[in-house]
Amino acid sequence: MSKNLETLKSRLADLNALGAAMGMMGWDQQTFMPPGGAGVRAQHVGILSRMSHELFVSDETRRLIEESLSEAEDGSEDAAMLRVVKRNFDILTKIPTALVEEKTKLSIEGHEVWVAARKANDFAKFRPVLERMVEICREEATHLGYKEHIYDALCDLFEEGATTADCRNMYDAIKAGTVPLVKAIKDSGKQPDDKILHGSWPVDKQKAFTEKLVKAIGFDFSRGRQDTAAHPFCGGWSANDVRITTRFLNYLPSAIFGSLHEAGHGLYEQNQRQDWDLTPLAGGCSCAWHESQSRTWENIVGRSRAFWTKFLPDLQEAFPEMKGVGLDSFYRMINRVQPSLIRVEADEVTYNLHTLVRFEIECDLMTGSLAVKDVPEAWNAKYEAYLGIRPATDTDGCLQDVHWSGGMIGYFPSYSMGNMLSFQVWACLQKDLGDTDSLIAAGNFEPILGWLKDKVYLHGCRYTPKELVLRVTGKPMGAEDYVAGLTRKYREVYGV
Amino acid sequence: MSKNLETLKSRLADLNALGAAMGMMGWDQQTFMPPGGAGVRAQHVGILSRMSHELFVSDETRRLIEESLSEAEDGSEDAAMLRVVKRNFDILTKIPTALVEEKTKLSIEGHEVWVAARKANDFAKFRPVLERMVEICREEATHLGYKEHIYDALCDLFEEGATTADCRNMYDAIKAGTVPLVKAIKDSGKQPDDKILHGSWPVDKQKAFTEKLVKAIGFDFSRGRQDTAAHPFCGGWSANDVRITTRFLNYLPSAIFGSLHEAGHGLYEQNQRQDWDLTPLAGGCSCAWHESQSRTWENIVGRSRAFWTKFLPDLQEAFPEMKGVGLDSFYRMINRVQPSLIRVEADEVTYNLHTLVRFEIECDLMTGSLAVKDVPEAWNAKYEAYLGIRPATDTDGCLQDVHWSGGMIGYFPSYSMGNMLSFQVWACLQKDLGDTDSLIAAGNFEPILGWLKDKVYLHGCRYTPKELVLRVTGKPMGAEDYVAGLTRKYREVYGV
Repeated sequence: MSKNLETLKSRLADLNALGAAMGMMGWDQQTFMPPGGAGVRAQHVGILSRMSHELFVSDETRRLIEESLSEAEDGSEDAAMLRVVKRNFDILTKIPTALVEEKTKLSIEGHEVWVAARKANDFAKFRPVLERMVEICREEATHLGYKEHIYDALCDLFEEGATTADCRNMYDAIKAGTVPLVKAIKDSGKQPDDKILHGSWPVDKQKAFTEKLVKAIGFDFSRGRQDTAAHPFCGGWSANDVRITTRFLNYLPSAIFGSLHEAGHGLYEQNQRQDWDLTPLAGGCSCAWHESQSRTWENIVGRSRAFWTKFLPDLQEAFPEMKGVGLDSFYRMINRVQPSLIRVEADEVTYNLHTLVRFEIECDLMTGSLAVKDVPEAWNAKYEAYLGIRPATDTDGCLQDVHWSGGMIGYFPSYSMGNMLSFQVWACLQKDLGDTDSLIAAGNFEPILGWLKDKVYLHGCRYTPKELVLRVTGKPMGAEDYVAGLTRKYREVYGV
Repeated sequence: MSKNLETLKSRLADLNALGAAMGMMGWDQQTFMPPGGAGVRAQHVGILSRMSHELFVSDETRRLIEESLSEAEDGSEDAAMLRVVKRNFDILTKIPTALVEEKTKLSIEGHEVWVAARKANDFAKFRPVLERMVEICREEATHLGYKEHIYDALCDLFEEGATTADCRNMYDAIKAGTVPLVKAIKDSGKQPDDKILHGSWPVDKQKAFTEKLVKAIGFDFSRGRQDTAAHPFCGGWSANDVRITTRFLNYLPSAIFGSLHEAGHGLYEQNQRQDWDLTPLAGGCSCAWHESQSRTWENIVGRSRAFWTKFLPDLQEAFPEMKGVGLDSFYRMINRVQPSLIRVEADEVTYNLHTLVRFEIECDLMTGSLAVKDVPEAWNAKYEAYLGIRPATDTDGCLQDVHWSGGMIGYFPSYSMGNMLSFQVWACLQKDLGDTDSLIAAGNFEPILGWLKDKVYLHGCRYTPKELVLRVTGKPMGAEDYVAGLTRKYREVYGV
């Protein structure tokens, strides 16, 4: 290894340790921290974050990256690692420090304003924050640069290489495929009655049952944990130490599918290459790739009939109230499609229509064709058009998401890309493994996990998201498998 | 504030954040970390530790300390803070890096060797590690410097200003006071039967009961937590985020007094000055001072008759098996004195005889008057002389403690100093508050906590340990109050 590369790798390991410290502090904050600890936690994280930034964004790091790049062999792991590092370095150095600081400050203040505005159903209160945030994001995009559309620069921040045109193509296909499906389901009038899923489910039983499920699909508790958090997430700092969280509510599927979702993220992390711990090659390839795996285990596996062929008896053992419910009936309940106002509660079919609304509004805000003051009206009109329902308040409308207060404009499409990708990858997996339903119904998840590990998980961040899609599926990311899969499944579920 | 002091304080806050990260990682490792996480945890802590060392031990830090010291006003908080920082800086810079690195390496390897040797009852296996460790500690002492006795330098590392002569005086008084007491108790033949305390106590009941107790004495759960750990400890990184741990065994007093002990440390931490968070003035004054407070709440308060006048009914409510046990009988059970071989299981009276054995052996190892090969024989002879029992194996003898494998020679006396100090401080508290038994029996701990907070906790590290003893008790640390208090209590308990 060249001296430059060695020095750079050592610096990257230092950054990894600081990142692990912040990751651990974030995990603790959402799981175990007593309320009084919040103040000093913010100070400590602030300091570590600044130290990390100073260590990374320096002339010395730039020199090390450039010289290492000139020495690295094309196609080597080192070259891949340097690509990742250079991308991060460029993003952090292209945007002027003053703008970064203003955005950070506005995010913190803006979050409080958003919480208050949402509570009071008062968009006017949030409007000045969003106006400034849109301007900041426009400036960011200008500094980052883009080819066709100003929104491209923001997309790319969250999903390397993704463009506005990619998003439009995706949403066109999704709209064409799912809007009629949602309508057909609505018109059928055949909604399963899932009242039985609402009840006072004992937390210890929910905990034990969700642990059983995530263990069954392959989440390794000797290298991870499941705890509870108000907003479930997956954290971690090594393939050998992955922390998933869930929450136990009165709606039984909430913990079950929440756990499977986070365990999907967790499986991706646990099955990384262990020698990439402490390097920038560790972790998921992108937001969309990560989301594709949480969705695979939550929806494709977890909401399948085969899965409950295996686990419904266990569920009924744990929750005797469920003993009278048949497999078919349960399957329909957990695959209920119902247009609703709140994205995070949306079902698998309508979910992308929620992110579509945000994508279109974000694009228009960035080009200036929509003014912030007109967001509520645009939002409500789009909900009416795509979902057939109209929010009565902005609290249930354009004030529902946390993202904009933090300046996370450009993020929403990656949720839908994850959904698409989960089906596109699964189609290839099925081609290789054959009858996946039989595997799932037998509780034999090892071949599925093994395939995903070989094809996806073990590659960490080595390839760009687009390269990995091509390598795994042989074609660019598209909505065909997704729309076809959803249509097939839900026409059967609803008999439409 | 001078520019130098400002820069130094900012650097110290950075070090505090790194320290908090390592503290949090250490806490997690002993409470929640899955076993697989150990490898990467060691790497991350190793990196953060090196970063912290590099940031602190530099010519720039030295310059900042020296210039700030020349500018600080005598007696000011800043001067006190600079004293603490200078002491730490001197300790870290006086010992050559190569020696520090060798000690760290030997500690890690030595720990494994010690575990194996202890398991196999094979002192010969551990002997080479201890021989080199004794040499390293001698070299350390030479670099650190001392006036009278080579062991002074090691004492001072753990207890600023403490000397070998201080330890000898303390142990002479303790020996004179407790050896006859232990003998009188043994000769009385009146051992309480405490078989009833051994049983399968439900963990959730133990958890709830210990939480009730530590909450009652003032541990604030909105600014702290209690979790379980194999080896209970108190951690934390702010007055507002203190983590205590306990363990639930089949011997009921284990969790109760373990929790009260750690909560004693926790009360010291939670009642710090909050504006000293992120500064070197935060935390306990010294090891002995910290131990004095854990012992105060565990023994002086927690093992008093008054305490159980209040809490025995609650205990019996939680553990119905205890319903037939009267107050007097319970009080005698939890104050059973019985010479035993294992320090960590020792009662309040015999405890210091265990540390005395270690102190004498350490001194002799340091002067060279005892060779490492002769440690087992010296150990066994001293146990026979002071405790009247002789270990049958080295596993139950000189291989029992973890300290020597880590090179922590000089630490043991601070346990006993803590015990002495707890009585010396309590005597002053009683003079001010009067009938503490009535307060305790009424569950009114606020005046006691308030007194300790004002006199001790709020001063953090502002004064040296010896200064603080003088300020709080008006005299130097001594064993009189301790010996008198123990003698009074146990002559009554045993009627001897």
